[in-house]
Amino acid sequence: MSKQQPNRKLLIGGYVMQGAGEAIRMERKDLIIEQNRIAAIGDDLRKRWANHDHGAGDVYHLDGKWVIPGLINAHNHAAMSLLRCFSDDKRLMEWLSQKMLPAEARMTAEDIYWGTHLAMAEMVRSGTTAFADMYIEMDHVAEAVAEAGMRASLSRGMVFLDERGDERMREALQLCERWQGACEGRITTMLAPHAPYTCPPERLREIADLARERNIPVHIHLAETEEESEKIAARYGVTPTRYLYDCGLFDDNHVLLAHAVQLSDDDISLLVGMRGGVAHNPVSNNKLGCGVAPIEALREAGITVGLGTDGAGSASSLDLFVTMQAAAWMQKVSFRDPTRLSARQVLTMATGCGADLLAIGDQTGRLKEGKAADLVILNPDAPHLLPHHDLPSLIAYAAKGSDVESVMVDGRWLMYKYQLTQVDEERIRYEANRRAQRIVADI
Amino acid sequence: MSKQQPNRKLLIGGYVMQGAGEAIRMERKDLIIEQNRIAAIGDDLRKRWANHDHGAGDVYHLDGKWVIPGLINAHNHAAMSLLRCFSDDKRLMEWLSQKMLPAEARMTAEDIYWGTHLAMAEMVRSGTTAFADMYIEMDHVAEAVAEAGMRASLSRGMVFLDERGDERMREALQLCERWQGACEGRITTMLAPHAPYTCPPERLREIADLARERNIPVHIHLAETEEESEKIAARYGVTPTRYLYDCGLFDDNHVLLAHAVQLSDDDISLLVGMRGGVAHNPVSNNKLGCGVAPIEALREAGITVGLGTDGAGSASSLDLFVTMQAAAWMQKVSFRDPTRLSARQVLTMATGCGADLLAIGDQTGRLKEGKAADLVILNPDAPHLLPHHDLPSLIAYAAKGSDVESVMVDGRWLMYKYQLTQVDEERIRYEANRRAQRIVADI
Repeated sequence: MSKQQPNRKLLIGGYVMQGAGEAIRMERKDLIIEQNRIAAIGDDLRKRWANHDHGAGDVYHLDGKWVIPGLINAHNHAAMSLLRCFSDDKRLMEWLSQKMLPAEARMTAEDIYWGTHLAMAEMVRSGTTAFADMYIEMDHVAEAVAEAGMRASLSRGMVFLDERGDERMREALQLCERWQGACEGRITTMLAPHAPYTCPPERLREIADLARERNIPVHIHLAETEEESEKIAARYGVTPTRYLYDCGLFDDNHVLLAHAVQLSDDDISLLVGMRGGVAHNPVSNNKLGCGVAPIEALREAGITVGLGTDGAGSASSLDLFVTMQAAAWMQKVSFRDPTRLSARQVLTMATGCGADLLAIGDQTGRLKEGKAADLVILNPDAPHLLPHHDLPSLIAYAAKGSDVESVMVDGRWLMYKYQLTQVDEERIRYEANRRAQRIVADI
Repeated sequence: MSKQQPNRKLLIGGYVMQGAGEAIRMERKDLIIEQNRIAAIGDDLRKRWANHDHGAGDVYHLDGKWVIPGLINAHNHAAMSLLRCFSDDKRLMEWLSQKMLPAEARMTAEDIYWGTHLAMAEMVRSGTTAFADMYIEMDHVAEAVAEAGMRASLSRGMVFLDERGDERMREALQLCERWQGACEGRITTMLAPHAPYTCPPERLREIADLARERNIPVHIHLAETEEESEKIAARYGVTPTRYLYDCGLFDDNHVLLAHAVQLSDDDISLLVGMRGGVAHNPVSNNKLGCGVAPIEALREAGITVGLGTDGAGSASSLDLFVTMQAAAWMQKVSFRDPTRLSARQVLTMATGCGADLLAIGDQTGRLKEGKAADLVILNPDAPHLLPHHDLPSLIAYAAKGSDVESVMVDGRWLMYKYQLTQVDEERIRYEANRRAQRIVADI
């Protein structure tokens, strides 16, 4: 499989996921991909294929395999894959101050480049085609994304706790100027004030205005922990959500809110009608003991909710199949109600809603004619996927990242029959292991 | 890989998991397997190997792969794999009465045989070497277990809601007489009164006495839902746990309690000092919205807690790697404390504690000289397992069933390099799909 691939593909005889929410269905359909777009989805497209340009292009027989939209990871710090399982089972502040921050301080731009590649190898292998990333040294992240072929919304995380705030703002804007729309639109950018407790009001107002003027979406952590709520209450006398609201962040801006665990009903009412929405990170919230985000209330209020993993430093895994299960379980058990957050709803969150959160919903997130050819082929033959009673349920509740056989982004295979086609996975493994050892030595 | 395998094996250069709880460690060690036993674990055993019988046997170079004890699934209804994802996102009583029971009523003994094979293919592929099963047509289940080579503790589930109670008791006792200790001890048996709400006190007393006289362990569901507690309170004026206690079930019997979600502090005090313990089924409890079992309180009270999946009809998955993650997350988030139920603790629950619950802890569950050679080899090279900071954390929080490369039970490979060696997996797939369609038609 070369990096350059033929620009016309016929996928015959797969079960293709279409529709959203409870209306999701999987039916036997053929797909024609032309360049980077889905040109057609229909019954028996072989004739149409043959009539065009004498059927030039590649034909793939899917033999009943399952085709789903590429999964979208709406909140990540990809390069933290280098810190996976480095510091588990610790209290959040100990984890952060004694382990994560000292290790991150040692990470070079090259480490971040390789850590991002490691994360993308994991994400592609588990069916993720796009992700929202907030980190530092973002030019190196963008280069890795350009190489690996994924879709990504990149942002430079800005913490304003010292005198280098202006420098960070410059870096954040440079990233947007250099990379917005790069790689034929695969790379987009956001502005990322880190969190309410690391951004003073004047900075948040400045960013809210800038984002509005330049039409740049905003990516920010919100209300992850009770400690955060206490801190913001002590400083400003309000909740973290109202603090952002009062700073004008939601006024006509597309805002991607990560976590949103500690929300009151009043907070939720402030978010009604917002552009953007919430990236729910159930594994990270579980593992750090943060709490249960009010996903059902948010969805009932009409707010878009997608799924993220958060960085592998907290979540351990970047597999959105794991995330879908965790999300559904968490709502069902917290409401003592198995009808909450159904299989089809979590599948919609992990695909179409994720695309909307990344502000690329017009391009991707659904398998429809005219959309980008971002798709995942699942092998349905493993014993844990049998028998085949209800395919969306099996995909949400029983499938694993390892069932992903092939992954296409923008019409190009990033993985074909379990082989990554765009990157040297052996080199990524080597660099990740080597660099990770150095980063954590004696911490 | 033949069904008959050489009776001496040297495993060189793996990282081998030893110890329990926070003392779990993984060190580079060699293993010698003689017949069905671990004959030695140590540094560089090649000399010792060569000195015996001129080194006759097979040598396996593990090259840094990870060796862990076989995982133990302490609560299952294996044949329900045929009903995986047949009826998700429904209320428990609707799920049970309108879907599961009508489908189960159509299952023949042959269906149960093939459903058990399907479940075992999934379990072996995800590193499970032993399981506790409660179902019907148990002779057919036992035959499947005998063929597949797994270790299992089998019990005929007894519901006493009609006049056929005596018949069920006879079947249950016959199973114990025929199969206890079969296949060189791989198969053991239990008596399984189904649950407090399906067993009247006189039956429970009868079974408690029988179990005590014949030294047969007991397997029973307990306190899975609030509805059960209400039912038992209305009928007998006590909690489900006290009901079993008052019937003498815990008096000098080994009892495997499945679920134990709805326990008061008083209930827990009734269990202190019991033989056996609790099989925690976090995925099933989550997915059916049953609640959070008080695992930490049970463990603090000195009660053995292992992990189970429950049947795939509720849990969707029989993968204990998924179960380990779900168990840890559930405690951490419900206590808002990431230090609860650590990686090493869940690993111990899924191995040694599980063996103790199945009353086979003297035989298996730990990698020690003299124990049965029940072990799992994990391939540590997938991107989602890199880098290698803390191996037990990676295994508990980041590994997937698909990382399992080879599985040995009683000194025999059941899977070797991703190939099942004892069964015809293609035939299992075919039979499972075919039979499942018939079973659920028009339900």
